[in-house]
Amino acid sequence: MSDPLRLGIAGLGTVGTGVVKIIQRHADLITARGGRPVVITAVSARDHTKNRDVDLSGYAWESDPVALAKRADVDIFVEVIGGSEGPARAATEAAIAAGKDVVTANKALLALHGQALAEAAEAKGAVIRFEAAVAGGIPVIKALTEGLAGNQIKRVMGVMNGTCNYILTRMESAGLPYEQVFEEARQLGYLEADPTLDVGGIDAGHKLSLLAAIAFGTKVSFDAVELEGIQKISIDDIRHAADMGFRIKLLGVAQMTGRGLEQRMSPCLVPSDSPLGQLPGGTNMVVLEGDSVGQVVLRGAGAGSGPTASAVMGDVIDLARGTRLSTFGRPAASLAAPVAAKANAPAPHYLRMTLQDKPGALAKIATVLGECGISIDRMRQYGHEDTSAPVLIVTHKTTRDAVDLALAGFTATGVMAGETVAIRIEQV
Amino acid sequence: MSDPLRLGIAGLGTVGTGVVKIIQRHADLITARGGRPVVITAVSARDHTKNRDVDLSGYAWESDPVALAKRADVDIFVEVIGGSEGPARAATEAAIAAGKDVVTANKALLALHGQALAEAAEAKGAVIRFEAAVAGGIPVIKALTEGLAGNQIKRVMGVMNGTCNYILTRMESAGLPYEQVFEEARQLGYLEADPTLDVGGIDAGHKLSLLAAIAFGTKVSFDAVELEGIQKISIDDIRHAADMGFRIKLLGVAQMTGRGLEQRMSPCLVPSDSPLGQLPGGTNMVVLEGDSVGQVVLRGAGAGSGPTASAVMGDVIDLARGTRLSTFGRPAASLAAPVAAKANAPAPHYLRMTLQDKPGALAKIATVLGECGISIDRMRQYGHEDTSAPVLIVTHKTTRDAVDLALAGFTATGVMAGETVAIRIEQV
Repeated sequence: MSDPLRLGIAGLGTVGTGVVKIIQRHADLITARGGRPVVITAVSARDHTKNRDVDLSGYAWESDPVALAKRADVDIFVEVIGGSEGPARAATEAAIAAGKDVVTANKALLALHGQALAEAAEAKGAVIRFEAAVAGGIPVIKALTEGLAGNQIKRVMGVMNGTCNYILTRMESAGLPYEQVFEEARQLGYLEADPTLDVGGIDAGHKLSLLAAIAFGTKVSFDAVELEGIQKISIDDIRHAADMGFRIKLLGVAQMTGRGLEQRMSPCLVPSDSPLGQLPGGTNMVVLEGDSVGQVVLRGAGAGSGPTASAVMGDVIDLARGTRLSTFGRPAASLAAPVAAKANAPAPHYLRMTLQDKPGALAKIATVLGECGISIDRMRQYGHEDTSAPVLIVTHKTTRDAVDLALAGFTATGVMAGETVAIRIEQV
Repeated sequence: MSDPLRLGIAGLGTVGTGVVKIIQRHADLITARGGRPVVITAVSARDHTKNRDVDLSGYAWESDPVALAKRADVDIFVEVIGGSEGPARAATEAAIAAGKDVVTANKALLALHGQALAEAAEAKGAVIRFEAAVAGGIPVIKALTEGLAGNQIKRVMGVMNGTCNYILTRMESAGLPYEQVFEEARQLGYLEADPTLDVGGIDAGHKLSLLAAIAFGTKVSFDAVELEGIQKISIDDIRHAADMGFRIKLLGVAQMTGRGLEQRMSPCLVPSDSPLGQLPGGTNMVVLEGDSVGQVVLRGAGAGSGPTASAVMGDVIDLARGTRLSTFGRPAASLAAPVAAKANAPAPHYLRMTLQDKPGALAKIATVLGECGISIDRMRQYGHEDTSAPVLIVTHKTTRDAVDLALAGFTATGVMAGETVAIRIEQV
């Protein structure tokens, strides 16, 4: 029997206590699979006195995670504090400086400082693993970094923020406006302290940028992710989309094109009867497309104590088994600085506009679309009682550039009554 | 730069040539990800002269795979010949005896001889990897062995034979009987030389037994898989199931219960609008259920040159990176001999029967069900013009034992006109 692998766990919230519970419950199973015992030697959190419904009496307590990270009796620093700066960053840097392996659930930290951390870790011969940072319990980092390592990756897509998916799903099922469901989600504790991280697409954008770095061998570049949140999605759009056979999801897409790396996290329409369209509330789905494997779809719980702790433990057991990978699947120094390109791959688009109710209005719109090279797949004009007419258009495949051109053209016609909503349609 | 990792590829069919193509196309990508070049030094196949649409001129040729396996310039023996005996087995044993790592796509070989091969490999310090043996390009062996290693696995399910899924899907969509679609599949080259491997559920059963060994830490025990093929599925059952909102899939389920290990590969009804119900033709889907992670669902191409070669290359690149796991995720000697238990977990069942058209017939059937403790969820009696009446029943959850008791009871009533079909309903 090898020596035990000793963990120091920084952060005892829902994920940290989840990890403690797994290790207490499954000591024998983990030893059998990992080839050596995995033990916790020390933990840290802000509040020592809080009741956490888990027995911590066997572990040393550190009030400072940096001190925890430096302890001689810690082999793996498990960082489940969260946040891109402050104690999480300081302690992770301290652990790496001390040559310790790091297992983290912290997408923000890696999305913003992943390259520097990866370089520091490699210089020290330490490993950073972060399965829990992306899509909760779904082993997608592993699938992409290892399982699909023989593929040139064509595209990575995913619904990776359960809170946004909950809000959009609930708006549709209950017929409630965004503001009301947002408030419900807040009361249910689904939202981050800064809710913009969720509904602004930032959290999901962090995750997408990590997948893109692995997929395309580029330095993680969260700054280059085009972010659009769900705050402007109206119940009208959800209803109209449903009428036409679509649902709205906050969907991330990353792909390498001839012009550079496209990364986009934005609301999209997906067919209601597609796997993405049928994704329930808090669930995540990631789609990986490789040149040999084709499309691999992974679905599971994107958050929560058990699923996230499961991902942490997968990384810990990998390390127990002696598996040691570069952070983003290849040496950090070999990652290329990506050329960011505007996400412009052709796709059908949904357009919702309101026209002034006067003769020739629709003809003007149709003319603008034609001039922009956009052809119409389907069009609906709804009955109306005032002087303006709601019109829905589903286009054939076109670029975002062409759509932007058309939106400017619509305004110039002088027949618009209000803003036009344009949402990309993805077929998965 | 480390020394190249040298492959010997035995078998140059669709998978073997797929592997050659990936290595030729992506040499740089593989080197970047694996940390060292991966090269092919030698290949073998039965027919040297056959045109394979791939340049083999740079590789030594061995007509005997055993000779290939023993070559001093081969580090990894890639076995993509297939078959549980003959050259595939002999060459794999020779490779292990020579201390070489093995990457294989051969489910039959591992399902029947996996324990002996794993023990032999471990005695020699060699590694056997077999991602390509289960569910083609889907990295499910990796997800289960590594990603979910912190979980007690509750259940593993999967549709893992694309040919059966094609036949069943095509029967429904074209309204054709089994025999006719079977003949189509044969002409399209979808069937194994011995088609019973596919339609008898044997191939899928091999795969299930490998997943079960990893999931439950037991010796692979294909003999204990309850096998039922799709040969008896009638177009009537497909239509009736569709009427009631179900599709028929050849579905494998493995779970550890208080009575022992249940392994079953059999046709099941699944809701038409569920992810399994919507699975298209040649696609595979595997569902992994862990105590912490909940349900993880993986979908992708279950066969074909590119997807299967992708899985082979994932294993090869793992070995290039220095990842070395026990064959079934823990030392072979520690795998327990499983106690096989009849698959009897409660589930709703679909019953199709034909009753003689006489007063009281249905009452007798209902009485038998009641006596067996089976309650009825839905029942339909179809219009008929002769003297017998087709009746469909969907039961509430009940065990297979209770269903078998009821089937015997039906016969004893003397009101049956023909055999009763009983198919389990799985909700995924």
